[in-house]
Parts: sequence; C-alpha cells; structure tokens
Amino acid sequence: MEISNIYEHIWQDLAKVEDKLSSVSKVDFPQLSELLDHSLKSNGKRIRPTLTLLSGKFYNYNLDYLLPMATAVEVMHTATLVHDDAIDNSLIRRGRPTVYKLWGKEKAVLLGDYLFAEAGALVATTQNLRAIKLFADTLKTISSGELNQAFNAFNLEQSRPQYLQRVAKKTDSLFSMSTESGAALSQAPEESIQILIEYSYNLGIAFQIVDDILDFIGTEEELGKPIGSDLAQGTLTLPAILLLEYYPEDKPVRRLFRHIDEQNNIKLAIELVRNSSIIQECYQVASDYCAKACHNLKLLPDNASRQSLFELADYIVSRKR
Amino acid sequence: MEISNIYEHIWQDLAKVEDKLSSVSKVDFPQLSELLDHSLKSNGKRIRPTLTLLSGKFYNYNLDYLLPMATAVEVMHTATLVHDDAIDNSLIRRGRPTVYKLWGKEKAVLLGDYLFAEAGALVATTQNLRAIKLFADTLKTISSGELNQAFNAFNLEQSRPQYLQRVAKKTDSLFSMSTESGAALSQAPEESIQILIEYSYNLGIAFQIVDDILDFIGTEEELGKPIGSDLAQGTLTLPAILLLEYYPEDKPVRRLFRHIDEQNNIKLAIELVRNSSIIQECYQVASDYCAKACHNLKLLPDNASRQSLFELADYIVSRKR
Repeated sequence: MEISNIYEHIWQDLAKVEDKLSSVSKVDFPQLSELLDHSLKSNGKRIRPTLTLLSGKFYNYNLDYLLPMATAVEVMHTATLVHDDAIDNSLIRRGRPTVYKLWGKEKAVLLGDYLFAEAGALVATTQNLRAIKLFADTLKTISSGELNQAFNAFNLEQSRPQYLQRVAKKTDSLFSMSTESGAALSQAPEESIQILIEYSYNLGIAFQIVDDILDFIGTEEELGKPIGSDLAQGTLTLPAILLLEYYPEDKPVRRLFRHIDEQNNIKLAIELVRNSSIIQECYQVASDYCAKACHNLKLLPDNASRQSLFELADYIVSRKR
Repeated sequence: MEISNIYEHIWQDLAKVEDKLSSVSKVDFPQLSELLDHSLKSNGKRIRPTLTLLSGKFYNYNLDYLLPMATAVEVMHTATLVHDDAIDNSLIRRGRPTVYKLWGKEKAVLLGDYLFAEAGALVATTQNLRAIKLFADTLKTISSGELNQAFNAFNLEQSRPQYLQRVAKKTDSLFSMSTESGAALSQAPEESIQILIEYSYNLGIAFQIVDDILDFIGTEEELGKPIGSDLAQGTLTLPAILLLEYYPEDKPVRRLFRHIDEQNNIKLAIELVRNSSIIQECYQVASDYCAKACHNLKLLPDNASRQSLFELADYIVSRKR
C-alpha cells in the first residue's frame, strides 16, 4: 500500500493545503519567515490534514472552511514537534536538522508558541465553535499527555494501560480532532462524526505503536532520526514494556532500564527486543487496532473517501517511516 | 494612588476571576495541578483582567462571558511568563521561585503550552468570534515580538522606535486584547471599542517603560526578582537606549554593552543610568503615554469604570513593583 494511492482523489485539496502552509511563512519578519519555512516545509506525511479532508468529504463540505482546518491540524502538529525537539534536545527529524539544532532552545520554544497561535487563527476562520473548542481542548490534552510522559520518564512501573492512556492523549487526540473537525465542518450527522472519531482514535493508537516499533527496528536512514530515541529520553513504549513483562524479576534487564539513557544500554535493549517475538506481538496489537478502526466505517456513505480511510489503515501498519 | 481603590467597584467580579483561576488548577493529575496552582496563585497585580472587567462595564455586559474572558487574559499572561522564565533561565519572579527553577525547563515549556490552551478554551466559552480571533492573533503578535527580542539581544544599534515597536508587540497586544474583548463582549459600539483600544495601547507602553525603569532603580525586595535582569539577557530597554544615546561615541560605554550580561558591567550600567537624568526622562515619556491614554476616555459614558481607568493610568506611573 503506497500512501500516494490514498491521496489520489484529494491531491488537489492537499496541494492547496501545501499552498496555505507556504503562506503561513510569508510574514514581514525575515528571521521568523525562515524559521516557519524550515519547520513547515518538512517531508512529513501530512496524515492529519488527509484525515480532515477525507472526513470532510461525506456530506456538504465547503473548502473555504475545510482547507484552513486541514492546514491548522498540520500547523498544530508541527508546533508540538518543534517543542518536543527543544525539550528532548533532538538534533535531527525527518532527515533534517531540527529548529532546536539550528536556532537553539529559546527560539524553538517561541516558534512553537507562534505556530500554536497560527493554528488557532486558522481554526478561527472556520467560524465553527465546535472546531474552535475542540482545538483548545486538544492542545490541553496533548500538553498534559506530554507532561505525564515527562513525569514518568525512567519509571519502570508503567503498564500497558498507562502506555495506552498516554498514547491516547499524545497522538489520538490530534488524530481525533482531525476527523471530528472535518466531519463537523461538513454538517455530518452526529452518528457519522462519532464513527469517524472512533476510527481515528483506534488508528492513532495503531499509528503510535508502529512509530514505537520503528524506533526499535528501523534504520536511521529510513526514520530520518537516531533509533532508540524514546529510550534515550527514558520513555517506555510498548516494546520496552513488553520486554520488562518478559523479564519481570530479571535483575540485569531491570538494571539496564534504570540507566536506559546510556548509549550501550540502549543498544542492548534494542538487541533484546529484536531477538524476541516482541516486535511481532506489537504488530499484532497495532493490526488489531486498525481492524477496530475500520469496524464501523462501512456505516458511512460509500465513496472514494471511505475507500481511502480503509487504505490508510493498511498503510499505517505497513509503513517504514 | 493605591491599586485597591481602582478595584473597589469590581472587587466582587475580581474575586470570581480568582475562583475561576483556582478551578483551572483542579485537574485529575496531581503533578499538573501543583504546577498550575504554583503559576496561577502568584501575587500578581491582575491588571489585565481588571482592564477586561472595567472595559466591559460600559454597555450591556453578561458576566457569564465577561468573567471567563477576564480569566483567560490572566491565564494567557501567566503562560507567557512561564515560557519567558524558562527561556531566560529566571529563578525568581514576584518573590517566589519560578516553575523553571522548581520543575525545570521541559515542564515549564509544557505547562506554558497547557496554559495557552486553557486560555483558548476559556475564550471559546464566550462564543464570540471576535474575541476568539483576537486571542489567536494576540498570541501570534506576542510570540513574534519575543522572537524579535531574541534575535536582537546584544544588538547595540537599536533605536527608540524599534524599542517602542517591540513593546507594542510584547505588552500592548495583551493590554489591547484585554480591553477590546471586554468591550466587544458588552456590545460596545465600535467607536467606544476603539477608544478603549487606544487607551490600553498607550497605557501598555507606559506600563512597560515603568517596568523597564524599575529594572534599573528598584530593589530586589520590591521587584521580587534581581534588578538588571533585562541587561543580563542582552535586552536593551529605554533607559539603556538613552544611555547609549548619551554616549554615542564613547568607547568604554559601548564596550560595556558589548558584554552587558556580565555582572560587573550590569552594575556599572545601572550606576551610570542612576547618576544621570535618564530615569527622570523615562518617567516623562511614560507620563506622556498615560496622558495620551486618558485623552479620549471622557468620550465614554461617565461611570465608576471610567473613573477607575483614569486612576489606573495614575497608578501605572507611581507603582513601585
């Protein structure tokens, strides 16, 4: 499954989203313009605006509102990445130096703030109070999820439910905002909106699990960033939690995790995971969530967007970056 | 002029704003709750919510909308302070350790994000699209102003107009949002809204100039933070710019400013300013802006709020912290 197939019938809209992203950088302040350009012109997969556009195509949509909304979710996503990189001291993302690396922490924090505001301004142009409220609530959920992760770094007592709860806050909330806003802006009946929220909620979990798997089995070239970067931050993701479940009493493994930010320990943990059935097990969990995501999709009107949503679920599990 | 006089006829509303600020901290996540409590229960002067409440009292106001808006401007102000302290590595504010000092940079950034989102959620409850758009635009203006300051740190070629432009973005924008939103939420005619914006714009400049003066002549006890903190960040404020204007060709003074973040140089610059007429001159500029602020106030309906706005302008110049 290639992602280009999924984009096929919305590529014109996606091109307009790209145009809007470019206009965001056109400000009368050259240094800010450069920062915006660098952060927004990434080779990101644009999955979130795709979700908004696809979810918006089932009923009476108006591109004057749908396009700014799709742009807003990508701008908001970018803002969270810029802040994440500043917080984690990450030097590289998607194969390019981060804003933090090029301009330092101070400017990365302020750029993130500006991007959050820009996203808010774009959402405001929809004049839709549901979308506006959703935007603010989603940002609350994401930042409280990130705080939760920060407070739990290097905490070995994390369980699967805690991991899933964190993922729900960190990734699902923005996925859900993407579909809910698209649907709400096209006057979808509440029943359909809920089906799309359920889809994106489960898709978001699958997406994050695959992200976490790739951090163990990917290559730096494919990922565009160092592997093991979650471990380096003391963040336990599903593969790490399963590893600790496999060796509940094993002192060396627990000792390893107590200093999991050290380069040698990261390598060892990655080896242990790769040489076990953990990756297979994680993929199974991700596939189950994708199946769940698609479960009620057939209740939506049958059109090209519905087909793309099915295909997106397949792509999510098969992707390499 | 005591600030308590100004609050006299709105103290019940302000108490409700305090209650709302307290409710913001009541979240089901103890560590976040503690962070929110620490940042929102400061001994701040609550000038921005006061502006919103006073500006809202001229026409048909509804406290169900005015109170969340007044709370939102304080939450937004707090968010900017939390990020500022994290960026500047400031250890103390208003006599208390900063979030940055107590919890570190990472959590300060995420808390600031959460507070921006909370402010947005509060503004959304007003269901007023003008207030919502204003909120997003103001945050854009503030963060681009802060970025401008960051890019110009240690730049000795800054002039008064550049300083005023920066102040307009950094301080005035939130002051203006405070009055404009209050007025718009009480169905004020556009003419009155513009008078209140003009008032807060000029008041904001005066307020910031006095802040900058106090950074030279205050005491650490009065200010609740070290004096000379702007210089330590390489930020040239009006007193410093006037000092450079006084000694345009003087090499020792320029050399001093080239390494103005060093403790000894800060002390020397403060001494030079204190032993000159610069402070008096700065106060004159601030007073002129206050007079400008009040110039058209008398065109508003004559009531207790109008009286308080006049008194607030007096207070702004006479305050010691």
